[in-house]
Formats: sequence, structure tokens, C-alpha cells
Amino acid sequence: MVDSIGMVGLGRMGGNMSRRIARAGLGVVAWDRAAGARMGLAGESGVTTVETLAALVQALPAPRVVWLMLPAGRPTEETLTELRGLLAAGDVVVDGANAWFKDSMRRARELAGDGLRFVDAGVSGGVWGLVNGYGLMVGGEAESVGRVEPFLRALAPAPDRGWLHCGPSGAGHYTKMVHNGIEYGLMQAYAEGFALLRAREDLDLDVAKIAEAWRHGTVIRSWLLDLTAEFLAEDSELESIAPIVADSGEGRWTAIESIELGVPTPVMTLALMQRFSSQGRGEYADRILARLRQSFGGHAVTRDNKGR
Amino acid sequence: MVDSIGMVGLGRMGGNMSRRIARAGLGVVAWDRAAGARMGLAGESGVTTVETLAALVQALPAPRVVWLMLPAGRPTEETLTELRGLLAAGDVVVDGANAWFKDSMRRARELAGDGLRFVDAGVSGGVWGLVNGYGLMVGGEAESVGRVEPFLRALAPAPDRGWLHCGPSGAGHYTKMVHNGIEYGLMQAYAEGFALLRAREDLDLDVAKIAEAWRHGTVIRSWLLDLTAEFLAEDSELESIAPIVADSGEGRWTAIESIELGVPTPVMTLALMQRFSSQGRGEYADRILARLRQSFGGHAVTRDNKGR
Repeated sequence: MVDSIGMVGLGRMGGNMSRRIARAGLGVVAWDRAAGARMGLAGESGVTTVETLAALVQALPAPRVVWLMLPAGRPTEETLTELRGLLAAGDVVVDGANAWFKDSMRRARELAGDGLRFVDAGVSGGVWGLVNGYGLMVGGEAESVGRVEPFLRALAPAPDRGWLHCGPSGAGHYTKMVHNGIEYGLMQAYAEGFALLRAREDLDLDVAKIAEAWRHGTVIRSWLLDLTAEFLAEDSELESIAPIVADSGEGRWTAIESIELGVPTPVMTLALMQRFSSQGRGEYADRILARLRQSFGGHAVTRDNKGR
Repeated sequence: MVDSIGMVGLGRMGGNMSRRIARAGLGVVAWDRAAGARMGLAGESGVTTVETLAALVQALPAPRVVWLMLPAGRPTEETLTELRGLLAAGDVVVDGANAWFKDSMRRARELAGDGLRFVDAGVSGGVWGLVNGYGLMVGGEAESVGRVEPFLRALAPAPDRGWLHCGPSGAGHYTKMVHNGIEYGLMQAYAEGFALLRAREDLDLDVAKIAEAWRHGTVIRSWLLDLTAEFLAEDSELESIAPIVADSGEGRWTAIESIELGVPTPVMTLALMQRFSSQGRGEYADRILARLRQSFGGHAVTRDNKGR
């Protein structure tokens, strides 16, 4: 019989991950709280959608592997609590969310109290993972990771690469956290560079063509540059994109971790701060600065509340 | 007859660029002030080494293309002065150094006064360019760039990609300057990430294995990460590498340019500042800080001059 995994959470990540596992010839029993998400996967070869979490657990071979692909925080926590009442000793829960590694350490301890096993898995690759495979960073005991390995091999770009058992519980999400911290820095560096190209108006540089040229033979070629070249070729002015950059937990945790460990990460942390600024969170400080200049030097301030 | 280029400066870059052009079936007349560098290329198929700059000029078909691959600044300036006395109207000089784009704009004007044409070419790819090809960013008039195009097509990773006529004189070196500014930011982001992985000692993470895993399927995969994975696999402790990072003109020019244009480039600029710190240039400030803490709080200072 084909080995099967239970996939909980069928959003952009979990849905495509289910498809990739099924296409590798393994079985997927899939459930999402939202009926629409379940419908999106219904009828896919190798995927069985079920109506409840209990039905998902019942449909899996023991020892079960249940992969959670939910938003970190409360959705993950609530589903874990429900799962603990349904699973049996020896079953493995994988958390593929961008969870805080200290939460993962705690969850591993809590589940162990019920005889359950926990694997924390950082998953990278976004919407491109279905085709390219996912980068996977995994933490937990060797035996638990071994139970999950067939699915890791199916999800990765190739069975023997792009996935790593990084260490004990927490190591997967810690590694993914640092991965995302690096990502913040890389993105900010590219963004600043393209802004500087565009600002030199007398040279009339074509940022889309430069991005495309840089993809080949240069020191800065990368997958993020590939993506940038692709969207700049379609629209290099980006006027329909508001200059507001969201941030998620990983960037903040990276900065906090560097402070707790006393390790300087100035660029990763500054890239996070730039995102806060883009969200308008630096505006009160800017008002203070403008007002101070007025106070000591009589400099004009802009009265329009919108500024700029 | 095969078209030929004159290559002046046969160091790590110019030597391999000569080889790559010759392997593409074009001719190279090569000269370096240092006899040893000339010897290193002697006997290579398609490459003719000559003893003087005058001999190089005489051996080329008109209109000539002479490519300078010298250190920016005085070596380039002196050779340009000598060349101006040797070349004829319509000849093209290409500067492949990491020159300041404002120098390139000036040189284009000066050479035009002699009827000579100037092309500024940013060249990326380092010691890997011989095999992979070079990323080339070129500035100058279309006719001048057209004369150089056969050689650009040979140097690039493929004839139709990895090289770009970016714009007028200066546009090539400006684009290369920004490329290197981005490179500073990318390198710093990766470096901080690996430091943070290593600092979390309880997880005992293997940075070499993580670098290798990250190469596949993740958002942060890149050529710089490929290089990092390669050297970490050989030696992940790096105890034989002093923690001192040199900087070259391009990083500084990027920061200065962003100030002159009033465009924020915080991460690229901070990455440069971190290099200054690594060179010990922040030590006096750190002494001031340590001494100030002693003054206001009676905090202990380390008396050993070496610190740390």
C-alpha cells in the first residue's frame, strides 16, 4: 500500500505541497477548515479530501504523519490541541508554518508528554514550489524525521537535495528564521540598487534590461534577481504597487534573536526597520524631526498632513 | 581575416578575458607592462603577445579596439595618455576597469577631442568568467559599442545575453558601480545569517550543510550562496581567514552617489561601513564609547590594547 500523509491547511502552500507529494506517487489525505480550499483539491489524482480533522486522522496508516500548513500562532496552536485528542502514540506531527523556533521547542516537549512526536519544518519556495520543489529545513529526533523522510524527498527539488535534518526540535524553524532574515537583507539591497539606477536620470537607464543582463555571468545573479527581471520586464514603473512592504514574524524574530545572542546583524535588522518605515511607522519620528528643525532654525515645515 | 582586439593588462581579469576571446575564434594582441604577465599568455592559441604598447597598436586592424583591463585610477590614466599618442581617429578605447563613472564621462570627452572613441565597460564574473562568461555593462555611443560588439558577444556567457549597452558614456560604469553596491549588501546579509546560525550553540547547526541545502528550492539561492556552500564544505570554521574585509572604490562611490542624488541606500551604505569597522577603522570610536561609560558610570574598561 502507498504511504500517505495528512495535510492540514490547503492554502497557497499546503495545496501545492499536496499536489507535489501526490505527483511523486505518495498518498495525501487533505483537509482545510474552509470548504472552498478543500474543493480546490478535490478530484486531484492521489489526493483524498476529507470533511473533518477526525476523518483525516482515521484515514491515515499508523504511525501517522500529519503535516500542518497553517498560519503560525493561534491557528496552528488550536489545531494542535484538537489533534492531540485524535492521534495515537508514535504519530508524528509536522509543523510547516513559519513558527517561532521557541514555540516549536515547547510544542515538541508538550506533544512528547502524550507520546506524540513533533517535527518543525521550515518550507521555502513560495508559489513556485509546485514546479521547482521546496527548500526544507527540518528539526526533531532522527526517528521522527525518518518517518517523514519519504514526503520530504517528494517535496524537495530532488530526493537527495534541498532538504536537511538540521538538528533537534527547533533547528528547522531556527534555520528557516535565519533564511528569511537573509532574504530581507538581499531584497533590500536589490531594491536600493534599482532605485539608484533609476534616480540617475541623465543616463536614462532601462532597469528592466539591466536586471535581465545581470542574470547572466554577474556576481549578483540569483533567484530573487530572476523574479525581479521578470516583473520589471512587464512593468518597470510599478506605479500600481504601493510603496508599503509588509513584514512577518521571521524578520522580527531574527532581529530579536541577534540581540539575545549578542551577534551583530545590522543589515538584516535595518532591512526590517526599512519595512517598518515603509508602513508609515516612522512618521511620528519624522514629524518630530521636522518640528525640531523649525524650533532651532526657523526652517519651514510642510503643513499638508500627507507630506511629500 | 579574423577581427582582433588589443588587450592591455593581463592580470586575473585581462588574462582570462584574452583567452575567452581567442577561444571564440577572434584574435587578441596582448600586452602588459610586466613581462611575467605577458609570458603567462604566450603560446595561447589565438593570442599574440607583444613587447610594447606601440607594437600592440601597430598589430591591430583599423579602426582599432583596445581594451584596458588595468586598475582604475593612475594606471588607467597613464596608459590612456600614452595610447592617445599612438591611436588614430576612429579607434575605440574600452575601459574595463572598475572606474568611477564620472572619470569615464570625462575620458570620453577628452578622447573625442582627438577623434578617438571611448567605451566604458563594467565587467563582472571574477576568476570564474573564463568558464562561465562575463557579465558586461557598457556605455558609449552606439557606433563605438557596435565596433566592440563582436568581443562583447565572445566575453558574455552567451552571444545574446549577459551584456548590455546601458546608455551614453558613463552608463556602463555607473551600472557596474550599482551592481557592486548591491553585491556589498547581499554579501553582508548572507554573512550575518551564517553568523547567527553558528551562534545558536545549543542547536549545533552545520552551516556547511545548511548552505548546501539552501542552494536548492529556497528563495535565497544565488551564485554567492553557491560559492559560500563550496568554501564552507572545505572549512566552516575559517580560523585561517582574518576577519578583515577590504573595500574598493565601487562601494564608496555607491554611497556617495546615493547622497548626491538624495536616494536612500541604507543597507548598501551600512554594508560598506561594516567593512570599515572590520578594518579597525571604528576602533577609536569604540575607545571613546568605552571611556565614556567609565566616566559616567564607573564601568570597567579593558586595558589590553588589543581588546576583545
